[in-house]
Amino acid sequence: MTPDLTTPDGRTALAAVYRETLLGDVIPFWLRHGLDSQHGGYLTALARDGRVIDTDKSVWFQGRGAWTFATLYNTAGREPRWLDAAKTGIEFLRRHGTASNGKMYFTVTRDGRPLRMRRYVYSESFASIANAAYARAAADGRAAGDAVRHFETYLQYSFAPGKIPPKVSPETRPTVGIGSFMIGLATAQELRENLGDVTARGRTCTEWIDWFIDRIERLFVRPELQVVLETAGPNGEILDHFDGRLLNPGHTLEAAWFIMHEGKFRRDRRLIQLGLTMLDWMWDRGWDEEYGGLYYFRDLLGLPVQEYWHDMKFWWPHCEAIIATQLAWSLTGDARYARWHRQVHDWSFRHFADREFGEWYGYLHRDGRVSVTLKGNMWKGPFHLPRMLWYCWRLLDQHSEPAGPPC
Amino acid sequence: MTPDLTTPDGRTALAAVYRETLLGDVIPFWLRHGLDSQHGGYLTALARDGRVIDTDKSVWFQGRGAWTFATLYNTAGREPRWLDAAKTGIEFLRRHGTASNGKMYFTVTRDGRPLRMRRYVYSESFASIANAAYARAAADGRAAGDAVRHFETYLQYSFAPGKIPPKVSPETRPTVGIGSFMIGLATAQELRENLGDVTARGRTCTEWIDWFIDRIERLFVRPELQVVLETAGPNGEILDHFDGRLLNPGHTLEAAWFIMHEGKFRRDRRLIQLGLTMLDWMWDRGWDEEYGGLYYFRDLLGLPVQEYWHDMKFWWPHCEAIIATQLAWSLTGDARYARWHRQVHDWSFRHFADREFGEWYGYLHRDGRVSVTLKGNMWKGPFHLPRMLWYCWRLLDQHSEPAGPPC
Repeated sequence: MTPDLTTPDGRTALAAVYRETLLGDVIPFWLRHGLDSQHGGYLTALARDGRVIDTDKSVWFQGRGAWTFATLYNTAGREPRWLDAAKTGIEFLRRHGTASNGKMYFTVTRDGRPLRMRRYVYSESFASIANAAYARAAADGRAAGDAVRHFETYLQYSFAPGKIPPKVSPETRPTVGIGSFMIGLATAQELRENLGDVTARGRTCTEWIDWFIDRIERLFVRPELQVVLETAGPNGEILDHFDGRLLNPGHTLEAAWFIMHEGKFRRDRRLIQLGLTMLDWMWDRGWDEEYGGLYYFRDLLGLPVQEYWHDMKFWWPHCEAIIATQLAWSLTGDARYARWHRQVHDWSFRHFADREFGEWYGYLHRDGRVSVTLKGNMWKGPFHLPRMLWYCWRLLDQHSEPAGPPC
Repeated sequence: MTPDLTTPDGRTALAAVYRETLLGDVIPFWLRHGLDSQHGGYLTALARDGRVIDTDKSVWFQGRGAWTFATLYNTAGREPRWLDAAKTGIEFLRRHGTASNGKMYFTVTRDGRPLRMRRYVYSESFASIANAAYARAAADGRAAGDAVRHFETYLQYSFAPGKIPPKVSPETRPTVGIGSFMIGLATAQELRENLGDVTARGRTCTEWIDWFIDRIERLFVRPELQVVLETAGPNGEILDHFDGRLLNPGHTLEAAWFIMHEGKFRRDRRLIQLGLTMLDWMWDRGWDEEYGGLYYFRDLLGLPVQEYWHDMKFWWPHCEAIIATQLAWSLTGDARYARWHRQVHDWSFRHFADREFGEWYGYLHRDGRVSVTLKGNMWKGPFHLPRMLWYCWRLLDQHSEPAGPPC
């Protein structure tokens, strides 16, 4: 029986669920199985029981993991093993993360030799938030500088025209995706949180946040269709093709809580309402009324999606939805958000959690059966699940009474 | 009740099933819905009922479709509408297929403006077989020249070191994939079939076929593990990582029948046995004993596969398996192959066929339920299914008695 978000006792009990899952299950799983004592950094390709099934290393996850451990250290108690765990990721990134052209790799071997570099620069954004959190945890000046430097590389490649070779010809069909704006937004929020309102490429974090939210709102938020697009034309045009119609509800629920978080931080009712509206629309688009859980992809017009695995249930959209609904309830006290939060919390803990070996499965069939039993790979590691548990636990700690709109 | 492959009456009835599905269902579906009367070429992104859901054009399918229609014209009756249908694909490719650097696009808009070019060169191999079949159908000299020219581009990019930028650093982990060899093999077979044993980049088609089969056998066929690898090191090393362990049974069953076909053509018992062995191993690896049908991916060591949709059932591996098992039976008379043929034929016709609107669905869940109802997209169009129906129908026509080993 899930504790009730709308009562003080329920909130106390729910905070304990998140805290204990985080500190008694998920973090110990990664500390036990994911630290590479031989070469440093994190091994994320783990079987159900934590056994390493691929020694290749995700550069994304060296940053994401270091952020998780450093953030715990900064906010949840000064445990030396969390600082050590953050440090090994930071040091691996320093030694092996960046190519001679200044761009970071996507994967490297266990001992840090280059495997793949991709066009885009999410390795850089995750290295940035890792270094920002670690700079605060270890009072490490080099990390503070690296955090800004990686963010600047991210900004340069993501937003200077032509730096990333586009997949689709920009002469024939110019397109923009929401991803680089929302990840930019979260990166700037993390820099500000840990380093103060620092400047990157001539703008403060707050100015970048304003710019990202403005772009998200103008290009991807479409009131006439009650939808948040994933891909659009350069002026927010709907591209009536497979890719242009493709909606990713989990992704836009993540953007929604980043914006609600910003609204709460600034006590800005307009931003909070923007995030709530995005949540409302994309919950309706994404929730599977038949089997429960959130679809991975939907089509804007209800047409067949080209991605054949569109109806699978992935762990991370559910983590984002748990945060978004809980934050929405804490900001409004609206019973609907408490109901949605319980729906997605219950479905997720029932279907993703591995009661035998701990942590969560990542990939379920539409009906909730496990598709693949691994606990991590190049895209799943110590990030979305611990971030959700940490955020929701801390939010309940701060709000033993619902806050109502903060402004 | 599926007709019995092992009796003369059964074979006659089975030939009628394939012929009638091909000429009474599948080809009419594509002629009715897939021809672009406005701009020429083929529209393959079709909903269940044939409605166009994306007007973008796959360059692969301009070639694959033209091959299908020209091959029908060459082998199954001189129907002018088949020749016309082939011609529109060939003409679209001539006008819009190739960029100024000589490499072909992957997708273009309905009116032929460039959208995507990919690193690899399968557009070229499919344009080559299309032109070869069309050259024969229309006695068109330009098409004969284009067939060889596209094959030469394919060979140059696929096998001249460094022409295709590798995904994974070749210094850290050199890798080779079976795909370029098996598609090269089928392309050379089609050129020889339609143009005679022509020369490309200094070798005859037969010499290329020898070279491709030799490479497949030496790099990917691993008797000590009874497996055909999809990816290996440059000397056939097993790469014990997600990608190196990834098996694609449908792909290697396709390679198996290409090699059996070559053995039959040459009356070469060793080649036939090689193809049969590949079929035996990969049938065992791929067949789903619980739900029936062929898994898309398997792991060499039975570990979890990184691709979360690994257990889905796609139409094309089933088409390849129907051909491979029927050809194996026709070459050996071995009852096991007739049994496997019936298993995969029955499962496929029961689960993929759309009894209301015709043609086949492409993408099923493991248990055979339809995942997405579309009839075509950038990867599904008038090729695998009509090729299987055509090949199996013609094979039965030629073999009203089982042939036994042809040498």
